[in-house]
Amino acid sequence: MSSKFKPLQRSEVEHWDAQVDVLVVGFGAAGACSAIAAHDSGAKVMIVEAASDAGGSTALSSAELYLGGGTRVQKAVGYEDTADAMYDYLMMSNAPQASAEKTRRYCDESVEHFDWLVEQGVPFKDSEYPGRAMMALTDDCLLFTGSEKAWPFKDHIPAAPRGHNLYVEGDNGGPLFMKIMAEAVAKRGIEQRFETRVLKLIVSTEDGVTRVCGAVIRQDMQEKFVEATQGVMLCCGGFVMNEDMVKQYAPELLKASVPIGNPNDTGSGIQMGMSVGGAVINMHEGFVSLPYYPPATLTYGILVNAQGQRFINEDAYHGRVGAACLRQVGGPVYFVMNVEDYEGYETQSYLGSPIGGTGETVDELAAELNLPEGQLQNCIETFNRFAKEGQDPLFHKDAAWLKPLEPPLVALDCTPGNGTFYPYFTLGGLDTTVDGQVLTAGGEVIPGLYAAGRTACGVPRRGDGYASGSSVGDASFSGRVAGLHIAKS
Amino acid sequence: MSSKFKPLQRSEVEHWDAQVDVLVVGFGAAGACSAIAAHDSGAKVMIVEAASDAGGSTALSSAELYLGGGTRVQKAVGYEDTADAMYDYLMMSNAPQASAEKTRRYCDESVEHFDWLVEQGVPFKDSEYPGRAMMALTDDCLLFTGSEKAWPFKDHIPAAPRGHNLYVEGDNGGPLFMKIMAEAVAKRGIEQRFETRVLKLIVSTEDGVTRVCGAVIRQDMQEKFVEATQGVMLCCGGFVMNEDMVKQYAPELLKASVPIGNPNDTGSGIQMGMSVGGAVINMHEGFVSLPYYPPATLTYGILVNAQGQRFINEDAYHGRVGAACLRQVGGPVYFVMNVEDYEGYETQSYLGSPIGGTGETVDELAAELNLPEGQLQNCIETFNRFAKEGQDPLFHKDAAWLKPLEPPLVALDCTPGNGTFYPYFTLGGLDTTVDGQVLTAGGEVIPGLYAAGRTACGVPRRGDGYASGSSVGDASFSGRVAGLHIAKS
Repeated sequence: MSSKFKPLQRSEVEHWDAQVDVLVVGFGAAGACSAIAAHDSGAKVMIVEAASDAGGSTALSSAELYLGGGTRVQKAVGYEDTADAMYDYLMMSNAPQASAEKTRRYCDESVEHFDWLVEQGVPFKDSEYPGRAMMALTDDCLLFTGSEKAWPFKDHIPAAPRGHNLYVEGDNGGPLFMKIMAEAVAKRGIEQRFETRVLKLIVSTEDGVTRVCGAVIRQDMQEKFVEATQGVMLCCGGFVMNEDMVKQYAPELLKASVPIGNPNDTGSGIQMGMSVGGAVINMHEGFVSLPYYPPATLTYGILVNAQGQRFINEDAYHGRVGAACLRQVGGPVYFVMNVEDYEGYETQSYLGSPIGGTGETVDELAAELNLPEGQLQNCIETFNRFAKEGQDPLFHKDAAWLKPLEPPLVALDCTPGNGTFYPYFTLGGLDTTVDGQVLTAGGEVIPGLYAAGRTACGVPRRGDGYASGSSVGDASFSGRVAGLHIAKS
Repeated sequence: MSSKFKPLQRSEVEHWDAQVDVLVVGFGAAGACSAIAAHDSGAKVMIVEAASDAGGSTALSSAELYLGGGTRVQKAVGYEDTADAMYDYLMMSNAPQASAEKTRRYCDESVEHFDWLVEQGVPFKDSEYPGRAMMALTDDCLLFTGSEKAWPFKDHIPAAPRGHNLYVEGDNGGPLFMKIMAEAVAKRGIEQRFETRVLKLIVSTEDGVTRVCGAVIRQDMQEKFVEATQGVMLCCGGFVMNEDMVKQYAPELLKASVPIGNPNDTGSGIQMGMSVGGAVINMHEGFVSLPYYPPATLTYGILVNAQGQRFINEDAYHGRVGAACLRQVGGPVYFVMNVEDYEGYETQSYLGSPIGGTGETVDELAAELNLPEGQLQNCIETFNRFAKEGQDPLFHKDAAWLKPLEPPLVALDCTPGNGTFYPYFTLGGLDTTVDGQVLTAGGEVIPGLYAAGRTACGVPRRGDGYASGSSVGDASFSGRVAGLHIAKS
């Protein structure tokens, strides 16, 4: 990592080019919500963005928002979700590194956050997307975006859909969400500067206490000095686009294929936080997906490893499945299915997996895949025997997705590194209080420094427990609560 | 974590109670070797230890040393090991987070380090321990202490035993090693202070550069101020005894049962390093063992999970097997074996696993274990069919350990949390240069601060790639090279 983020001492600043209460760095969901909340609480806010427009990684995403506990849409559609059920699910799926404090607040205030987003102009239709899909491709709202209906969660916690898709046709939630949020920022007259990069923080030390009091920014090829009397809010995304940092902190993610995010997800916010003593946690973790639905029919198939053994319930969330695929040691991963269930693959899938083999019989397929003798046969015989009874005693795949495998069969080769699209992003970041204040390794608040969104380590903490909408949900929520706090600091 | 380690500014020090060139904190293997090397290079050294005597975690260990590349003993016994083979093995087993630079130096200078230890008085017999055991229980030296002879490593890298056990009967290498090292320190007249805790570092800042220049120590109920003009060497062990830190950084280790180390492995050195901007890496990783041999005969058995499926070659190193057991999701782990191979278990084993079931037939055992219908039967049928031919197409267990399972059978219940002894310790720590200088997150050296042994992140980096002797080997080596460097700084 670079040492270029070394903070500047205030004593070295000759003049301020701008003076505000709060400087928000980064104009994705976290930055936008933070700027709005801080402004509405009375702070004079400036928001700066390295790119030429607002958006961040949120604008590139589906912007499903993982919210629950009885939102307007959940009630309208007829789901009886509770904050406790949502809490239990997020704690179980992010265990053992879940933050009880952050998760509790996120769930308890989820309905309020939904209402606040609606107030900002974010539209949600009171409807549900009926199918199994990674994102709603209609203008419908509610979607199961985690493993709530899948084992082991379904055995412990009442399931409810919590992915809230915006009221817009197709996978266009991200651009719409950020358009609305950027408008909400603009109409407030919050000062915005684009194509403006924050180079380093400015700190002052009094009585042995170091405080963040501004930042050096680069705009129009010039360095400028911005004072932020109440502090700096880092909303600069994660570090997935910084290969050195990923190698250093989360090397296992490099088994996946494509980092997703925007080009400025370089960890600059995390590094600036570290430059003034901010601690980082959960840095090894990331989201990895095997994006195999649509078509949902692939869910009828089975995933097998080099031993010809299944290793997961295939009806789990695609991120949980992706994480499991990457954990298989030394060998191929195949997705075996009936030809009839493969039909939508070529036109609908994001997967990019080559065909690993086909077979008019199981024996023929097993031979093509070069699996240990008898293993695939055993595996399929067992799967079929129980599937006919609606059972999966091995991995408890839901009966709705159990159907015997009957030749002709096809196997996709999902081996990591073999052409399959395994997108990934990071889930580690600065350690913060529930209000977004950045903490040192000693657990002390760094005065004047906040972080939100993926620059911080928030609610989502595990790839195998991830649910879509957790990042935009957490980014918008953590940005908003940190904005409220910094404005009152 | 506590903020009590916040460094003291030199300007606040009214007088020095002691002045040395180098202050070594912690008197385990790393501290001892560091003190000796620094002293022999001309530095005035003080070594302080929180406990009442030298030893650290090394004295509690077997003190096998993982060394190779053609040591005197390897040659005498007839192994043609090379630094390259050792390097390839350590890089493969610690991938993807292996440090090429640290591993290269460790391997290239391994023979020299062995000779240096011998010069200090550490005795090694020119012999090999013939059996499969976690440690040599005779006075023999060489032992395979990793997975060198196991798949997948055996397919890629020439195998050689690199665990060097001291010339002493029984599992008594650790106390002997530290006795010899403590004598080597004492005879040099290096100042030693026991029952002396380092409370915090002392730093001076000049021209914007912060330098570690001493430490506040607590001895005889008094705080004292020690100046260390060339710097402070942190050799304080890892953080396995600090439950808060383990929860924060390596929560998955808590699935294991017993933290191993000495009571002062509280992460104090890591925290002191962080208190002055030291970066930490690999903090989520740890060693976990399923210490199932002796008796070696258990290796003939098979490990199965909740699905009644095998998941590892059972002839791998116990740490690799332990890591695999902890990765099995949601359910029991059973070790199934012939009754004849179980015989030594009750008298020789460290495992502590209760019997999960027995069977005069496979069906009877499967029913007792409540595994999914037919799974154990399939698993054993497959295993036996290939074992008879000396094959294991699933996990490539070596033919020497392949023998059909024939009732009566017994299954140990090795489910984590169920009474089985799963010892663990941490493998993350301060990021350092190959010479032991502590680095900031920005990759800059912190002047005057060094770390070695498990306070730093060294050569061993993965639980599933660990080899016994890596920690004492790395601690003694990294301590020694850091001692050389600090003395010349």
